[in-house]
Amino acid sequence: MNPDQQQFEKTGARHIGQSADGIAKVLAPGTVANLVCGFDILGMCLDEPNDLMEIRLLNEKKIIIHSADGYPLPLDPAQNTAGAPLVEMISELGTPTGFEVTIHKKIKPGSGIGSSAASAAGAVVAANYLLGNIFSKKDLVRFAMFGEKVASGVKHADNVAPCIYGGITLIRSIHPLDIISIPAPDLFVTIVHPQIEVRTKDARQILRKEVLLKDAIRQWGNIAGLVAGFMKGDLDLVGRSLEDVIIEPVRSILIPGFDEVKSRCKEAGALGGGISGSGPSIFMLSRDEATAIHVESVMQEIYNRIGLDYHTYVTTINKTGVKILQE
Amino acid sequence: MNPDQQQFEKTGARHIGQSADGIAKVLAPGTVANLVCGFDILGMCLDEPNDLMEIRLLNEKKIIIHSADGYPLPLDPAQNTAGAPLVEMISELGTPTGFEVTIHKKIKPGSGIGSSAASAAGAVVAANYLLGNIFSKKDLVRFAMFGEKVASGVKHADNVAPCIYGGITLIRSIHPLDIISIPAPDLFVTIVHPQIEVRTKDARQILRKEVLLKDAIRQWGNIAGLVAGFMKGDLDLVGRSLEDVIIEPVRSILIPGFDEVKSRCKEAGALGGGISGSGPSIFMLSRDEATAIHVESVMQEIYNRIGLDYHTYVTTINKTGVKILQE
Repeated sequence: MNPDQQQFEKTGARHIGQSADGIAKVLAPGTVANLVCGFDILGMCLDEPNDLMEIRLLNEKKIIIHSADGYPLPLDPAQNTAGAPLVEMISELGTPTGFEVTIHKKIKPGSGIGSSAASAAGAVVAANYLLGNIFSKKDLVRFAMFGEKVASGVKHADNVAPCIYGGITLIRSIHPLDIISIPAPDLFVTIVHPQIEVRTKDARQILRKEVLLKDAIRQWGNIAGLVAGFMKGDLDLVGRSLEDVIIEPVRSILIPGFDEVKSRCKEAGALGGGISGSGPSIFMLSRDEATAIHVESVMQEIYNRIGLDYHTYVTTINKTGVKILQE
Repeated sequence: MNPDQQQFEKTGARHIGQSADGIAKVLAPGTVANLVCGFDILGMCLDEPNDLMEIRLLNEKKIIIHSADGYPLPLDPAQNTAGAPLVEMISELGTPTGFEVTIHKKIKPGSGIGSSAASAAGAVVAANYLLGNIFSKKDLVRFAMFGEKVASGVKHADNVAPCIYGGITLIRSIHPLDIISIPAPDLFVTIVHPQIEVRTKDARQILRKEVLLKDAIRQWGNIAGLVAGFMKGDLDLVGRSLEDVIIEPVRSILIPGFDEVKSRCKEAGALGGGISGSGPSIFMLSRDEATAIHVESVMQEIYNRIGLDYHTYVTTINKTGVKILQE
């Protein structure tokens, strides 16, 4: 099916406001954007960690936001990453419809694994479910991008698209929005989140506006190889193509230990990896769980020695995106 | 099969110098390099036109070159695009082996559809056949690149690789050489060769050494989309991805009529296309033969009006590369 026309399965006879009790619970997963050579265009959905969100349908044009676990989230809907997409959605609906959203924030903001995207994507997928799945996935990405604008000032889609579609997604273009699902092999993902702050705006600012043509050519050779590797299930090719000669050399200086993590994880058997999003998290792809766990121990050893607090995750590629738990 | 290990079918019991009469005839096809957004990395093999080459095995370390049809080809093997690869091949063999090569040059040098690559690739495929197919396709590309160095001063592989492998090939990297076959859909190709001279060296010289990061990102979004489109057989996606925001805007000014050819061929139903190699030929991809023929008539109309001599071809993607005709 052409992803442009891809729709959620319609929830059938239920109409707006008529869902059983009008509540949906969803797991909204973390995502890795800027997948190495795929800066700004390639993202990947993770099975862990997830935000837990509860959304209730209201019969008035109103968005209410709650933080369930004391996280200091902005409660003004227009300033909240889950609220802003819903404001857009209900304005497009034009009916007296609203949502009350309760967010259990499990994905730490600023980690670089799509915390804001999870809130935005979780909200719109749940809301759409309660509305009888009247919007396409592409529509939902369009709404969710308003959440990213609140979070980082930029309406980018490379976290919200994989969060909504699942798997690995290519954002070929933002204007017009062109999202392509790339079949993802069964890989294991190890992530380390060193507890330092790298602001997305800062990470954008340090990039050079111009790059060498020869570097750009090498980068598009790698992105072509990476897409072909994923689609052929050729993991050697995936490994060879996981090289970023443009963004990583600049941004990695913001992340203590990056070069050592990368080289030692590859020695430990990882196919490769890089900065997750704009950092500070670093992700590594492995063929099997044992390698992914070994890679985790290498990351732990490095940050223990450096003396930085950190979290690690060993997970897999989430092929389906935001998950509806129950009504 | 991993293309790195891809071998020709071994010709069996025959040994060096013992082939039936030690002669091979081959059709060496034209190729389109720099496939739109795939500058320097993506090439495509054509069913037409072809050079016809005859190669005879010699029992002495010697390369002899003949031009069958009066084309003024350099006859010094080291300066000939078919000879230089064979010089490399026999130096690697280290046995008293040589080849006598007769070239019927049907692909006009300087046309931008891989004339030098056809001679180089045809020579090494035929020679390898006479040797009992002892070299891999990748070895043959490595040899054939010496012919490209003679022709343009640069050892590039984006014509010789598709000429030897057939179909669409990705050259992810030159050092080390990494060639990936991209499954090619059944598309029709229309080519117009306006009879003006664009020297590869000049076409390289006018490129800027630096490009905008935002343009590079758009380019690698397109190349990722193009590879995914080819592999999924999603021709709409192929069409949307056939966009080059970096090379074409600079080089197309060397080709009279380019902008009109491109826009009017797309109006006529072509998926898209661009400069073939470094020009002056322009190629267009179409879903079906009728469209490809209609596109040809549009090209003819434009160059008739401009008053430039031209050749046109309507052909298909050659999936197998250089073809052995007979021994």
